[in-house]
Formats: sequence, C-alpha cells, structure tokens
Amino acid sequence: MLRSPHLQSNPSLFAFLPLFYTVWSDAVLTPSEVSTIEGLIDNQHWLSDDERNFLHSQINPLQPPSVEDLMEWKEEIKKAADQTDGKSLVDIGFQLAHMHGAVSAELLKERKALGNIEATLGFISHEAAYNFQSGKRDSVTQQLTTHQTFDVEAMTKILDGKNTEIIRKVKTVLDDPEFRYIDPGNLPLYRAKVLQWTHLLADQGFGIIAYPKEYGGQNDMDSYFAIMETLSYHDLSLVVKFGVQFGLWGMSVYFLGTEKHHKKYLKDIGTLQLPGCFAMTEIHHGSNVKGVETTATYNHPTKTITVHTPHKNARKEFIGNAALHGQTATVFAKLIVEGKDYGVCAVIVPLRDKKGNTLSGITIEDCGRKMGLNGVDNGKIEFTQVSVPVENLLDKYMQITEDGKFASTIASDNRRFFTMLGTLVGGRIGIPRAGLSASKSGLAIAITYADQRKQFGPEGAPEVPILNYRTHQRRLMPYLANVYALHFSLQYLTTRFLNRKENEMQEIEALAAGLKAFATWNATATLQECRECCGGKGYMSENRIDALKNDTDIFTTFEGDNTVLMQLVAKSRLTEFKQEFAHMNLLGILNYVTDQAKTSITELNPIIIRNTEDAHLLDPEFHRDAFRYRERNILTSAAKRLKRHIDDGMDSFDAFNVSQHHLVQVGFAYIERIVLEKFIEQVNNTADKNCQAILKKLCALFALNQLDKNKGWYLEQGYMEGVKTKAIRKMLNQLCWEVRQDAVPLVRAFAIPDSCLAAPIAGVN
Amino acid sequence: MLRSPHLQSNPSLFAFLPLFYTVWSDAVLTPSEVSTIEGLIDNQHWLSDDERNFLHSQINPLQPPSVEDLMEWKEEIKKAADQTDGKSLVDIGFQLAHMHGAVSAELLKERKALGNIEATLGFISHEAAYNFQSGKRDSVTQQLTTHQTFDVEAMTKILDGKNTEIIRKVKTVLDDPEFRYIDPGNLPLYRAKVLQWTHLLADQGFGIIAYPKEYGGQNDMDSYFAIMETLSYHDLSLVVKFGVQFGLWGMSVYFLGTEKHHKKYLKDIGTLQLPGCFAMTEIHHGSNVKGVETTATYNHPTKTITVHTPHKNARKEFIGNAALHGQTATVFAKLIVEGKDYGVCAVIVPLRDKKGNTLSGITIEDCGRKMGLNGVDNGKIEFTQVSVPVENLLDKYMQITEDGKFASTIASDNRRFFTMLGTLVGGRIGIPRAGLSASKSGLAIAITYADQRKQFGPEGAPEVPILNYRTHQRRLMPYLANVYALHFSLQYLTTRFLNRKENEMQEIEALAAGLKAFATWNATATLQECRECCGGKGYMSENRIDALKNDTDIFTTFEGDNTVLMQLVAKSRLTEFKQEFAHMNLLGILNYVTDQAKTSITELNPIIIRNTEDAHLLDPEFHRDAFRYRERNILTSAAKRLKRHIDDGMDSFDAFNVSQHHLVQVGFAYIERIVLEKFIEQVNNTADKNCQAILKKLCALFALNQLDKNKGWYLEQGYMEGVKTKAIRKMLNQLCWEVRQDAVPLVRAFAIPDSCLAAPIAGVN
Repeated sequence: MLRSPHLQSNPSLFAFLPLFYTVWSDAVLTPSEVSTIEGLIDNQHWLSDDERNFLHSQINPLQPPSVEDLMEWKEEIKKAADQTDGKSLVDIGFQLAHMHGAVSAELLKERKALGNIEATLGFISHEAAYNFQSGKRDSVTQQLTTHQTFDVEAMTKILDGKNTEIIRKVKTVLDDPEFRYIDPGNLPLYRAKVLQWTHLLADQGFGIIAYPKEYGGQNDMDSYFAIMETLSYHDLSLVVKFGVQFGLWGMSVYFLGTEKHHKKYLKDIGTLQLPGCFAMTEIHHGSNVKGVETTATYNHPTKTITVHTPHKNARKEFIGNAALHGQTATVFAKLIVEGKDYGVCAVIVPLRDKKGNTLSGITIEDCGRKMGLNGVDNGKIEFTQVSVPVENLLDKYMQITEDGKFASTIASDNRRFFTMLGTLVGGRIGIPRAGLSASKSGLAIAITYADQRKQFGPEGAPEVPILNYRTHQRRLMPYLANVYALHFSLQYLTTRFLNRKENEMQEIEALAAGLKAFATWNATATLQECRECCGGKGYMSENRIDALKNDTDIFTTFEGDNTVLMQLVAKSRLTEFKQEFAHMNLLGILNYVTDQAKTSITELNPIIIRNTEDAHLLDPEFHRDAFRYRERNILTSAAKRLKRHIDDGMDSFDAFNVSQHHLVQVGFAYIERIVLEKFIEQVNNTADKNCQAILKKLCALFALNQLDKNKGWYLEQGYMEGVKTKAIRKMLNQLCWEVRQDAVPLVRAFAIPDSCLAAPIAGVN
Repeated sequence: MLRSPHLQSNPSLFAFLPLFYTVWSDAVLTPSEVSTIEGLIDNQHWLSDDERNFLHSQINPLQPPSVEDLMEWKEEIKKAADQTDGKSLVDIGFQLAHMHGAVSAELLKERKALGNIEATLGFISHEAAYNFQSGKRDSVTQQLTTHQTFDVEAMTKILDGKNTEIIRKVKTVLDDPEFRYIDPGNLPLYRAKVLQWTHLLADQGFGIIAYPKEYGGQNDMDSYFAIMETLSYHDLSLVVKFGVQFGLWGMSVYFLGTEKHHKKYLKDIGTLQLPGCFAMTEIHHGSNVKGVETTATYNHPTKTITVHTPHKNARKEFIGNAALHGQTATVFAKLIVEGKDYGVCAVIVPLRDKKGNTLSGITIEDCGRKMGLNGVDNGKIEFTQVSVPVENLLDKYMQITEDGKFASTIASDNRRFFTMLGTLVGGRIGIPRAGLSASKSGLAIAITYADQRKQFGPEGAPEVPILNYRTHQRRLMPYLANVYALHFSLQYLTTRFLNRKENEMQEIEALAAGLKAFATWNATATLQECRECCGGKGYMSENRIDALKNDTDIFTTFEGDNTVLMQLVAKSRLTEFKQEFAHMNLLGILNYVTDQAKTSITELNPIIIRNTEDAHLLDPEFHRDAFRYRERNILTSAAKRLKRHIDDGMDSFDAFNVSQHHLVQVGFAYIERIVLEKFIEQVNNTADKNCQAILKKLCALFALNQLDKNKGWYLEQGYMEGVKTKAIRKMLNQLCWEVRQDAVPLVRAFAIPDSCLAAPIAGVN
C-alpha cells in the first residue's frame, strides 16, 4: 500500500493506515467489520471514487496484505505515533498523513468526517493505539505494588501474645539442620524420620510441658498449644505424631486416669520413653463413638479385665502410632461388669514389648499409604482375649470396687460418656490451630509468589504481577482475612478452655466443635485456592502446598467429622430454645414470635436495608448486627421448624433429618458471629495505631466476605435489598485491592521460619 | 426409689419414674429443668405434702440416684413400655403405675393433672419414650433404601453411545493383570510402570487411532477421545502420559506440520517408537504463551534453525515425558528470520538418542515429586544453541522459503498465533473428559460406600446408612447430577469439534475453554466432597480417592488456567456486543437498554417471580428461561460496565481488571446455559422411558442446584422473590432424597471396571 500512487497523490489517505493495520493484525476480520469500514470509506466525501475504490481494495479479505506489508506499515505508523500525544487511531493517522505532506487545513476538515473510528468499529478507544506507542501507558493496575503501612514485628507480637518466648524456642529447634524435610515417598524412612524428630522435641521438654510438675512437666497447657501451632509450620506428620503421643495418649491417661496412672505413665509418655496410642475409632464406629463394640470384661476372681474384639469390623482403625512404634494404648471399650454393660470405658493395654514385638493376643495391620501424613504409622488393632490387670482401667469417672462392683459418681451412662469425652476437647483446639498454621504457610507462599510472578500486561507495557489482578485478589485476600480472624478466635477458645469451669463446659464444647469445623474447612479451602493460584508451581512438591493440603485434608474428619460437629453445635444452641419454648403455651409462643417480628421491623428499617454509604458498609456495628440477626433468625426458624414437624406427628429422628441442612447453618451462623466479635474486640484492643488500621481493614474484609457469601439469605429475609448487596460486593473488591498492598507484610508477620516455609516460589529453599 | 414406702402406699407415684429416669440419664440436668419439675410436682393436687416432698427429693442434684438405681429403673420401665402402645412418658408412667396396683379410675384424673410432661420440659415428644421401646420405631429415614427404577445396562448404552465398542475394548485391556495398580511412592518404579503401560496401549493401536490411515492410523479422533475418557477410570498418570505422547506431541506434528513431517514421524509417534514432548510452557511464561522467550533463529547459509534458551527463566518447564523418556520435542519459540521476530513457531528438536543419553546442547532437569501424576516424568529443558535442519520447522502456518525469507498465508502474527493454538484445542476436550471419568470414579466409591456405611440412628432402632442423611445427600447428589450433565455436554463439544468448520472455530474454542474450566473445577470439588464424605476411609490410599483428587488437581491449571480461560470465554462473548454497540448512537443504546428492560418486564411477571408450584419448579422451560436470563443479563451488564468505565476515561486494561470478577461470571453463565440445554435435549431424546424419567430428575436437580447457588444474583435482580428461592431449596432437598434411591444404580451405569475402581469401601479390591 505504502508505495501506491494514490498515497503519493493524496497523502491524506495515510490517515487510514492505522485503521487498516489494526483490523488486519486483529485475530479475526469479520464480514460485519468489513462492511462497517466500507461504509465509513463511502461516507468520506472528500475522497474521489477512485480513492474510495483503492481503499476498499485494502480491506478485501481475499487480498490480504503480506507479512512484510504489515511489518512495514507498523514501523511507519510507529514513527507517527511517537510524535503525537493523541491516543486514537485517527490522531495517529493524521499525524502520519501530516508527515507525508498532507496539508493541515484540509486535514482538519477530513478529521471531522472520519469521526471516532474506534467507536464506529466498537474498538476500545486508545487500546488499538497502544500497539504503536510503547512505554506511554500508565494503567493503575500496572502501578499497584506492595506498600507496607504497619510494623511487621509489632504485628508478630500481637499475634504471638504471651506465647512469644515458647514460639521462639520452638522455631529455634526447628531451624536445626536435623529438621530438614525429607522426601515422603519412602514410608519406612519417612516414618523413622518423624519418630526421630518427635524424640528431638521430647528431649527439649516440649512433650511433657502440659503435665503436672510432679511428673516432670510444667503444668503449662497454654504453651503446649502454642508448641503444636508453631510445629505446624513444619511437617504436619510430625505435628500429628507429637499430638498422638503427648496429646491423645498422654492426655487420656492424664484426664481419664488417676494418680496411680499419672505416677506410672506420665513421665515416660512425656519423654517418649513409652510411645502409645489412642485407640478409640473402630471400623464400624467412627463418628458414633458411643457405639464401639470392643469389650472390656471384668473378671473378679483374677481382678483382670479382658479386652476383646468381637468381630473384624470392631477392630480399632486409623490408630496413629499403632503400625510401628506404639507400645501401649488407651483402648475405648464397653465395660462389662457382672454381665452388665456400663457403657464406654478407657483401659490401658500394652501392645508391644520394648523390642517392638507385638504381644500375644494383639494383631496389628498397617493402614499403609494415605493421602497425607505418611510420616505417621496408622494401624488397625485387633484384640483377642487380651487380659490386663484391673488397675489399667482409667478410673477417674468409673471404678471397680474391691468387691468387684461397678461404681461411678455419675449414674447415667450417657452423662458419664459425655463427661469423659468432654475432657478430651483439647484435641478440638489443637487441630484447628494446626490447620491455621498450615493455612498461613499456604498463604505466605501463594501471596509472596503472586507479588513477584508477572503474567500478561497492557498492550505496549511490561507484564503485571498477578496479585494486581482483581480475580487473584478476590481469591486470596479473603482467606488472608480469615486466618487473621481465626487466629484471634482460636486464641479466645484456648483461653476459655484453660480457664474452664464445670458449668461452662457445654458452651466450650460447642465452641470448640464449631471452631474446629469452621477452621479446618477453611484450611482445606485456603490451601486448595493457594494451589490453584500458584498454577503449575503450586503442584510441584518442592513448593510444599501439596503436603500442606494433603496432610491437613483429614482435619475436617478427625476429632469429629465437621458436618456431624456442626449439628452438635446446633443441638447445643437449641437447648436454649428447648427451655424457652417449654414454658410457653400457645399464647406465649405467639407473643415470642411477635417479639421476634418487632425486632425484625426495627432492623428492617427501609433506610438501613438500602444503605450503601461507605461508612455504613465498613461499620463494625453494621457487621455485628447483621451477623447477630442471622444467628438469631436461623436458630429461631430451625427451632420453630423442628417443633412444627414434631407437632405434625413426624418422627423426631425424621424431623431432625429433614432439618439437617438448616441445622448446619445454625452452627455456622453461631461460629461466624463469635469469630467476628472476637476480631472486632481485637481491633479495639490493639494499641499500635498502624496495626490497628490494617486489622480493622481485615476485619471488615472478613465481615463483608461472609455477608457476600450469605447474601442470598439476607435478600430472602429482606434484611438487605439488592442495591446494598451489590454495594457490599463492590466494597469487598475495593478492600481486596487495598489489602493487597499490605498482603506481603501481613504474611511476613506470621514469622514462619524460612527453613519451614522452604518453598522456592516464596523465595526460600 | 423403687422400694420406698411412698410407692408402696401410693403406686400412682410410679407415674413419675419414666420422667425421673429421663432427666437423670440425660447428659445435663440444668437448674431450670429442676425448677420446672418442682413446679410440675407442686401442681399435682392429688398428692399429699409428704408425697410431694418425697418426689422433690428424687430430683435433688446433690442426691443423684446410683448407677444401679438407674439400671433398675430402666428395666422396670421397659416392662411397662412393652405393654403399652403409648409413646409418651406419661403413658408409660401410668402403665407402670397400673402394673403396680394403682386404681384405673384415679389414674384417669391424675393423668390430666400431669398433662404433657414432654412439652412442659421442652423434650421432643416420643423421643424419650423410645429409650424404653426397642424395635417399635419406624422413621422414614431408617426405611429409605436403594430402589432401582431403570435398567442399568440401558443407561450405560445411552452414556457410551456410538463409542460402545471401543470403550469395551479399552476396558478389556485394562482388566489384564498387567494393569494392576502399583504403589506410587517410588518414583523410578512408578514412572517405568506407566511407560510400560503406555507401550501396552500403543501395541493395541490406541495411540495411533486418530492419525491418518496412510500412517497406520484409522483417522478416528472420536475413538481417541473415548479411549482417553475410558483410560481415565484407571491411573491418571497413564492417561496424561498417553495424552502427552499421542495427543500433545503427536497432534502438534499432525496439525502444525505438513506431509513431510507426517511421513517421517506419525507412525513412530503412534506406536511409541518415538516418545516425545510438547515443550510450550516456560518458567516465566505459562498462561501467557505468546510471551515465550526461547528463540528459533533461522540461519540461511546452513539452512538450519538454532534453538536457544536466552536465560534460566526461559527454560521449558513442567514438560511431560522430558525428565526421562522423551527423545524428541515440539518446541515453541519465537521465530527469528533475517533478524526479525515473526512470533511463535513450533519446531521439532531431538532431545536424546535411542539409548536415552541427552544430546549436546540439551540440559534437562527433573521436576521431581508432584502433588500427583507422579508416574509422569516432568522436566525442565534448557537449549544451548541447538541446531536443527530447517525441515524441522512445523510449517503448516509459516514457512521459510528457498531463498531464506519468512512466508505465511496469515500476515498477522497475532492471527497466526491464535490459528495455531486453535488447532490444539483438542487438549481442552481430552482433559475435561478425563476429569469427568475421575469424578465418576469418586462418586461411584463415595455413593456405594454411603449406601452401606451405617452410623447413628434413632433411639431404640438400628443405625442408618449415611446416604439416608439429608446433608450427605445434599453433598453428593448434586455432583452426581453434574457428572451426568457434563457427560452430555462434553459429548456435544466433542461432536462440534469433530465436525468443525473454519467459521465456527471461535465459538468452539470458547465452548472448549469454558467447559474445560467448568468441568475440571467440578472434578476438584466433587473429589474433595467424596474424600470428606468417606471420612477416614476416604483418606486411605487403598480407596483411591486421594489419587483421583491429587492426579486431577492440576487439570484446573493445565491446558490453560481456569480463571484465565473463563475470561477468554467472556471476551469471546463480548465480541458480539462490540459490534452491537458499534452501530449505535446514544439513541440506539437507549433503545437497546429499553428493549432489555421490556424483556425483563415480561419475565419479571409478579406471578412468576413468586411461583412456587412444584410443576413450575420442575419445569425445564422455567430452568432454561432462568439460565438464559442470567446469561444475557450478566453479559449485557458486563458490556455496559466496560463501556461506562472506558467512556469515563479509564484505561482499558484497568477497566477489564475492575470487571474481571464480573467477566468470570459471564463465562460461567454461558457454560451453565449450554450444559443445561444439552441435558434437556438429551432427556427429550431418550427413548427408554425409565431412563428418561431418572435423567429428567437429574436434569432438574442440576438446574435447581445452580439456581440455588446463584440465588443471591436472582434475588438481587428481582427475577425471583425469597418465597421462590426458598421453595427451590426445598425442592432441591426433595430431589436429592428421591435421587438417592437410584444413586447406586446411577453410578453402576458408568460401568467402571472393578479392576479400575479397586476401592475396598466400594466393595472391590
């Protein structure tokens, strides 16, 4: 085209060149594009027919320009583009025409006739021009970068709180080259390594720390949890091995046993001289522990207890430490005394001698490879008439008297069972805290990587860090807010547990069950998102997300299946209502419902349900009100629904089944409200102003993300109108954009040791 | 209590025994419960003061009954319970009183005074009574069981369609003992095994089947996809190894090369004589393939091309078959001719000699262990000035002329690039179909297990299969509907691809990208749910869910990151609007918006937005309308939003970034509509009435599940009111309940070979 006589005689025709280049270099030149351009050409009355025909010939799909033509055109156009600040194809075209000698006065007329080419063709204005103008672009997306607004060490102090010292100590130990990760493929080597690591930790006094001083411990349960949480930055098999030994096995002896057991076992357990197991789950009874079928039959003449597995499906299953290292186990079994079944008891049963040989009557099968946690040797245990002295009965809550009778201060089997289980609630604190650390590791890796990793970019400008993309922010920032939120609520749970009083146990158990479910589901979702956000790099084992995900995946199952736990939480919340409804006759219930409606009317103020002001959307009061409204409303409606079904004659088991999905929501609404409240408290109690400011933002992000997730419900209730839920979504995206700038410092505040993080994509090997 | 003189003198007092037993055996006896019962006792005017005091003493928390007392009470109450059909504590109590000699006439009076104890205490009526009445319960939840309504083989035929024969053949081969799974822990052994398996498949002619007949193939691409899908019931590493060799490596030669390449390579590729790689992704360029930095420089004097890696981050990464077995690779690189960069080309580069020694200039690093697919040897490849003859250029779309010039019939680099990529779209069909099979395996395992596994149950009745629980149904049944839905839409995509015409490519590419994203995300979610639904059993490798999940996890990344793909889909959909807006002036756009509003008004009919009738909720017309409305509305609003931002002067890159989340939804809405429509078509075209009936149910389940997921959006738009979204949720639960009965037959219809499924919890080893 460039050398055509038409251009020589009328250099104004150069004005079309950027347009032609653009349509030809575009991926597709559609028939409708062709006809649009033809129409445009036909409208240029300043052109001769001949010139119009010439221009038509330049967009004939059967006569495309050659590769060289296009290259030459581009170079020519670039020269013009460099000499104009105009960003439209017409601007550049006229500059080009001008450079080739077109007369300015005429050009001015023609410019009007050409109008806005981009708009006519439906191009995005300026976009096409960037093809020719390199280095001139300054999009906001490109410029966004890490901009730290707070002191990282100050934030770490807030997170670590009074556990700072023990956390530092654990990190120092983990930093030792002995703790370098090994390939998890070879089961025997991996399991041996994890055992060795556990010994090293025991040698540091970490295992015994929670036990009473008289047995070598420090009576420091708080530090025990902090150790678990910090170890969880390292290999999760190690954490579970540690937890099985010092938590499950040790605590069962500590909490279910009495002084004679403490004296005999605790020191050896705490120093890992006596590796043991916690043998509760059976093949046919997992969630329903009350149904275990293993029997522990008392024989008065010999003062022994016979532990027996009545059939293959009553074998203990998934028992950590059982396949190789456990020498002893706390076995949960039905206690039979004088032929009567007194419900579940716990009894200590030796499994192996010091050399590791399985004892007579004990048959152990290795569970083999698992999705994760392959450094832990899980096994199935079968007992064939195994006899142990009666002293092995952990007898805090039930005893066999000298004359061979069963005795307990808790007469009800049911109540005794739940009291025993209640003492073991600590496991439901350790697991979510371990999952929290794994989530932090995943986010530290994914966020550090996304801040560095560049991919795609605007035409004519460098590629952009993927963390600058809105979808990437929306995928990661809410999870970052969640781990901060959960950090504080798990601290709160721990404190409640450490200071527990008898009459608070029901509440604390519900809290632990619910937070365990919420936090471990969140860990699974977080790590899945981190994996995907790191693309292929996230799939490589060297970057550790696979191990974090696979090792913690079972957290949603163990210490109680999450779905079952959320129903427990709901049932616990409903007991409140059980009483409330109990005292009411029909009139009372009607009044109650009317009261509820009144509250609703106040909150369902037409101004509030449509309020989309920024200050309101960011107001913690609004968040708290909305979360509380949801909690109360869902709980009430679940209670009413159950009552209605039962009043209608539905079997109560069916009524609960029909309402199961609703009940799980009751659990969620309760837990989410608690998590929000504890986060708001933390924000209010934070003295450091910069830390407070970013925590406040994270808290709002947590709240708005939940509100957005539950917007269907809020809209159904009429608590918000569409205009408000849309505004929430917009604000949520805005918060993600803002938090992104502090995201790297926020994950650095977790202060995860490099040797633990150990992911090349996070800059640590 | 039983032997108290009060009972001897007034046997009517026995009426209280069931109540006392119940409150004592309950887990907690709260102060308010005590006071309620005290009030109840005080209201019994037929009692003497002395008797009242006696009864008060029986609920004193400081004087609980003994274990023996409770046991004795229970046995006593049971006797009475067996003799009455009454299901309330009062009924049983009066039967007991009667048995102990209380006079019937008096009892009648007293009964009224006691009223409904359960209600007073807020117990659930009958629940407490079941403690004493075993075998009398008949809840609906217990009775639910598998009830097959269609012929499984007929359904399998519908699914397999015209591929029945080749599917049967693949299954027969996989059934050979040679294909028994091996432990994936040992990388060298596992990789060698997968290579051996791939040879066995090649020996059957499966690898070459899609290639032209003149090179030993059968020109049967349809069967190739069916083979991939069927193999995906087996080890996924095998599928990927198979796909890398015969799909990626082979198809790149087939589609990007010309006859000379076909002659030289296709037969050896198809028989696995020449194992090769597809070397596209680089460390710094994954999603953004256009940015690859490897260079292929043409040297005219020697008629060679020099392939070179300019820096470490331009190394090829994650390349399957590279670490060990690949002898040759199709390498994607920037083609430089006469110093000019002509964009991305593909060139064949030998990597190893027949003995497996790496050739000069080639440096390969093993990617090592991955989250999954450890039977595939992924590697990084670095080229140091590697020279190959110019004939190695795959020259279908670009050539080097005899005189050393670049030539192409497609002048635009951009268009040439996308045309080349477009030919490789087959990968985006194979992957989702492989993910679909993995999802089917996961569901077959989880559903078969849940149908057998029993846990918990009503008081006084056997435990219940966990698939009878509503939450379990809600977790699994929608995914079962999804795999049926995706089966048919992936069939549709395949057919479109096989019959593709040039002018349909843009649509087919968008369809493939979107379905790939939708189906692989669905696979990840399905397998995660299956893992959790199988509890600890799901975590054991023997049950294979871990491998299915981990092997397919990368499917959301490879062949294009899903989030990026969904944006591509959206952009493709927007090109429609680009033209539509182009021809409009302000008036035109206003008219357009008004048109949209008119449509909305028709659909937002106040009767329809509140219609909760079953027939309406189950009507495919309603589903289709709702899906289409969403698709159109989201697309329009995205277009308007982009236009508004750009008109406001926002940089276009920023405008797209701000709208990213919205654009992803555009992609989803489009794909979901397609999936629904294809499912409805399938239902209508199914001749077998029983199969049609259950498919119709699954189709409604798919539709309602999506509507429920998107209910926030529909409520925001005013397309539905809360009363309708609630009715949808209820109907969804009901469909889950109904489909549960056919769930086992529905997974059996996948006809997954036992030797492939191989999960003990699914009854196959």
